[in-house]
Amino acid sequence: MNVSTVPRTMRAAVIARPGGPDVIELRERPTPIPDTHEVLVRVHASAMNRADVLQRMGRYPAPRGAPADVPGLELAGTVVAHGPAAERWPVGARVFGLVAGGAHADYVALHEDTVAAMPGTMSWVDGGAVPEAFITAFDALEQAGARAGETVLIHAVASGVGLAAVQLARARGAVPLGTTRTTAKLERVLPLGLRGGFATDQGLDGLVPWVLASTEGRGVDVTLDLVGGPYLRTTIDAMAHRGRIVLIGTLAGAEATIALGVVLYKRLTIRGTVLRSRTLDERKRDAAAFGRDVVPLLARGAIHPVIDRVFPLERVADAHALVESNSTTGKVVVTMTDEPIPQAP
Amino acid sequence: MNVSTVPRTMRAAVIARPGGPDVIELRERPTPIPDTHEVLVRVHASAMNRADVLQRMGRYPAPRGAPADVPGLELAGTVVAHGPAAERWPVGARVFGLVAGGAHADYVALHEDTVAAMPGTMSWVDGGAVPEAFITAFDALEQAGARAGETVLIHAVASGVGLAAVQLARARGAVPLGTTRTTAKLERVLPLGLRGGFATDQGLDGLVPWVLASTEGRGVDVTLDLVGGPYLRTTIDAMAHRGRIVLIGTLAGAEATIALGVVLYKRLTIRGTVLRSRTLDERKRDAAAFGRDVVPLLARGAIHPVIDRVFPLERVADAHALVESNSTTGKVVVTMTDEPIPQAP
Repeated sequence: MNVSTVPRTMRAAVIARPGGPDVIELRERPTPIPDTHEVLVRVHASAMNRADVLQRMGRYPAPRGAPADVPGLELAGTVVAHGPAAERWPVGARVFGLVAGGAHADYVALHEDTVAAMPGTMSWVDGGAVPEAFITAFDALEQAGARAGETVLIHAVASGVGLAAVQLARARGAVPLGTTRTTAKLERVLPLGLRGGFATDQGLDGLVPWVLASTEGRGVDVTLDLVGGPYLRTTIDAMAHRGRIVLIGTLAGAEATIALGVVLYKRLTIRGTVLRSRTLDERKRDAAAFGRDVVPLLARGAIHPVIDRVFPLERVADAHALVESNSTTGKVVVTMTDEPIPQAP
Repeated sequence: MNVSTVPRTMRAAVIARPGGPDVIELRERPTPIPDTHEVLVRVHASAMNRADVLQRMGRYPAPRGAPADVPGLELAGTVVAHGPAAERWPVGARVFGLVAGGAHADYVALHEDTVAAMPGTMSWVDGGAVPEAFITAFDALEQAGARAGETVLIHAVASGVGLAAVQLARARGAVPLGTTRTTAKLERVLPLGLRGGFATDQGLDGLVPWVLASTEGRGVDVTLDLVGGPYLRTTIDAMAHRGRIVLIGTLAGAEATIALGVVLYKRLTIRGTVLRSRTLDERKRDAAAFGRDVVPLLARGAIHPVIDRVFPLERVADAHALVESNSTTGKVVVTMTDEPIPQAP
């Protein structure tokens, strides 16, 4: 396939106006033209992220340079054309990576250094479910400096990022603990290597005693917090001396009241992180680290994405609705091509 | 002088019971006997810290190993005796450093690697005012990774730590901004190199616009916060992208309500720090960094402590009362020997 065979228009999941899942419409859009160092990728699969839902509601505008009205932050696909100075990937190369938006469409143009080679053993559905969850979780563990033997508490452990974090924490010799809404969800995570879990459907009161009992009284060294809100205060009480908290999301609320005295006394670090607003140089580094440190683990099956459900692009509105239901365990994938879709579990 | 000439008892400022400044009594206590790697120091000067006041009130128990009822976290003095394996300092060496308590007394025993050589040009009063403020400020700037060209906002800039931070920020090529209660206090700090100051007696509402106007709209890269409470929320709004906040104190309150969304979006780091509870190995490293990176600046007069008032040990209760008044600019020093006391400014 070369550039002349790429159609001039493509399908894209467009936010017609801010609102519920039904405001997403499949529309015809011009196929992007790759810029100097970009590759054009035929997207085979992408996946849903909370940011797509918030963008659709009008609560999370796309950053500059990303399409304002087409969600989609990750993709797995085939290189089909190049910008004039892009030379890293041949046509036909299987790649996966992140974009700041626009991946819920048939084609995406992105810098050639922001994708990694996708293992040949991996399906498109699995590939589409990997980048955001595994790059976010890997980057958060790096920022936390999580070391072998340390304990890592993961809130919203049944989320895509949470399930990636469990596996990546194990891969570096750390001990993952996790919280999620229900015991049923926890049970799906235990086989991935979760050392222990706490169901929050009865509230957070028992969390600190449970953490202390699980860590011989030390508290956890690292927390990856996708939940925010009231969790942060309790998390601070559950940390070991010199612990590090990485804030990745605010599902439970964007405000928190915290005990500064405990932060000082324990010498804690609280760090906020987000991938989407990163500079091109940062995104290149993120992709390089992903290719170097995470993809080999995926290639040999030591870690793998967990898929909750797969929808074809025509049904992306249903994918939005499912993510909003907060009932998923793992990723909700969107496919653009005709690879057979696995049965939902 | 050798060990046989050290008196067996000494004066110590003892907290008779939790309460106001009048519960501090000078009592006779056994002179400490230096342990294996310790030196015994004849204290010539120490200084007051907020922790001394809180300890006296019963709100900040001394850590294990420190005297439970004798405050005093820093000292400048002369080595007068050694533990059996201490060999680094000769008798008569002028040293200064930190202890976890007990420095408001005539003698202190402490590990030989937790003091630094005091410049010969420095008076005891100046020496006693240096360690806590300059080690805290230097360590906080290091933890924040404050670089040349970056802007550093210092809350409670007229405190001992604040005034040290202004000078140490300048010394590394960073640009210090500061807040304090009154314009009068700010004016005393400007000659030390403060680029600009904000008086908080009219509230915090104007702080963010002032910071933005002072940083060409970028916000500050680093904040050293000795104040806590409601300041943290406003500080977060005043930070530049990827800014670092180091929490050093909670003068204005130990609780804070913060906007997690901003912490994530700006990718901020909030880090709590305290010197007093550090391990011996950490305190050795702190003293080594102080000796290597800070003392040379003091020796050549590039930086210097700012003294508000000096009291002899007999009047340490008055020193407590003065610190509690929150009216000081710089350090309140306590002297144990007869060096003439400079006039109060």
